[in-house]
Amino acid sequence: MQLFYSRRRDAQHWVLSDEEAHHCAKVLRHQAGDELEVMDGQGNWIKGKIVRMTKYEIFLEVLSFRQQDYQPERRVHLAFAPVKNMSRLEWMMEKAVEVGVSDFWLVQTQRTEKTQVRLDRLQKVILAAAKQSLKCLLPPIHPLQSLESMVKATQNISCRLFGSMQAERALTQIYTGDEGIFLVGPEGDFTDAEVHFLEEGGFVGVHLGPHRLRTETAILTAGILMTQYLKK
Amino acid sequence: MQLFYSRRRDAQHWVLSDEEAHHCAKVLRHQAGDELEVMDGQGNWIKGKIVRMTKYEIFLEVLSFRQQDYQPERRVHLAFAPVKNMSRLEWMMEKAVEVGVSDFWLVQTQRTEKTQVRLDRLQKVILAAAKQSLKCLLPPIHPLQSLESMVKATQNISCRLFGSMQAERALTQIYTGDEGIFLVGPEGDFTDAEVHFLEEGGFVGVHLGPHRLRTETAILTAGILMTQYLKK
Repeated sequence: MQLFYSRRRDAQHWVLSDEEAHHCAKVLRHQAGDELEVMDGQGNWIKGKIVRMTKYEIFLEVLSFRQQDYQPERRVHLAFAPVKNMSRLEWMMEKAVEVGVSDFWLVQTQRTEKTQVRLDRLQKVILAAAKQSLKCLLPPIHPLQSLESMVKATQNISCRLFGSMQAERALTQIYTGDEGIFLVGPEGDFTDAEVHFLEEGGFVGVHLGPHRLRTETAILTAGILMTQYLKK
Repeated sequence: MQLFYSRRRDAQHWVLSDEEAHHCAKVLRHQAGDELEVMDGQGNWIKGKIVRMTKYEIFLEVLSFRQQDYQPERRVHLAFAPVKNMSRLEWMMEKAVEVGVSDFWLVQTQRTEKTQVRLDRLQKVILAAAKQSLKCLLPPIHPLQSLESMVKATQNISCRLFGSMQAERALTQIYTGDEGIFLVGPEGDFTDAEVHFLEEGGFVGVHLGPHRLRTETAILTAGILMTQYLKK
């Protein structure tokens, strides 16, 4: 099954544009009258019929409509310092979207080496993964910000954790299944001052088992454990 | 910390050869007298001193020796039909080694499209991941075999599961934390006859949540859940 993405719409008409329109018309060779499944990335999903096609846009009439079950109390957020290797970041985000992570936070730490991130590329990865796994809600990427700013912005999340090889307890011993955020440090780890700041701010350090994990593996491992926990 | 791999050894001397020797001498520029950490992929780990170097080999004197804690009752096996995209298979195996999966099984099903796998490439991925995550035991890849053969060969594993979107119970509801194997079907899923055969053979169908996962995501998700379960 193929799911399309419509960036803009009004009540009765949805429109595929740019790459989506090209893919639909030129690659999959859809024509006027064809029926498509389309989502808007905001939690809405339609079955629509192609009523008009131009070179750059495809206009759809809405045949049926549904909203995604959205449970804000069960959101799983992943926060991390951008890793140097962009392709490792991309595959991790692809998998995280597939398993149902709802928000990404890019955090600048003292030892973050990479301070610029191609957000447009990451957003493409998220869109492709959402379409592939049939999700109509696109996880937002909260733009690169300081640790202080992220800690403040997430203070209403009930369960806030950060990864630490020194922690005594494992993620699976602490996580309650409520809305949660897991923060992974940069490749050179947090500074002592940052750990202190996180703990003061309400974050709890947990480990992910005895293995030395690459940064992106640690992020995804936490994402999988937290999203699956909810399904117990 | 850098961990090296020695394919052959006797009681007192370990030898780095081929790419390991090249990497050690030419890339990292180690010299006679330097001390290295080396593992043999069989669960043994030494600290060794370089005593002699030739163009192709580096000979080490053993300074200290330890064996990896090896708990056969806690092994996590992943079985799967090879996926078409080799790079997706490779990253999945890299991550699975990092989190502590102990055995890989390649299975031929009726709808398996790919019937040849470059085992040498996968073994290189496993070696690199084991070194990176400081493991001295290399997970074996059991060569491509029929479903019948795999079911028979794994009959002593206490918890045997296979992924099924139709299953009523989640992996996390069934898995006991004993030695376990998780089997993921091919991209076109198992046939009804295969599902019947698996159930007759003692495999239990479980799901991995409500999301449509790519094959390699499903395999890794099961690997992470099963390896982390043990750490509770």
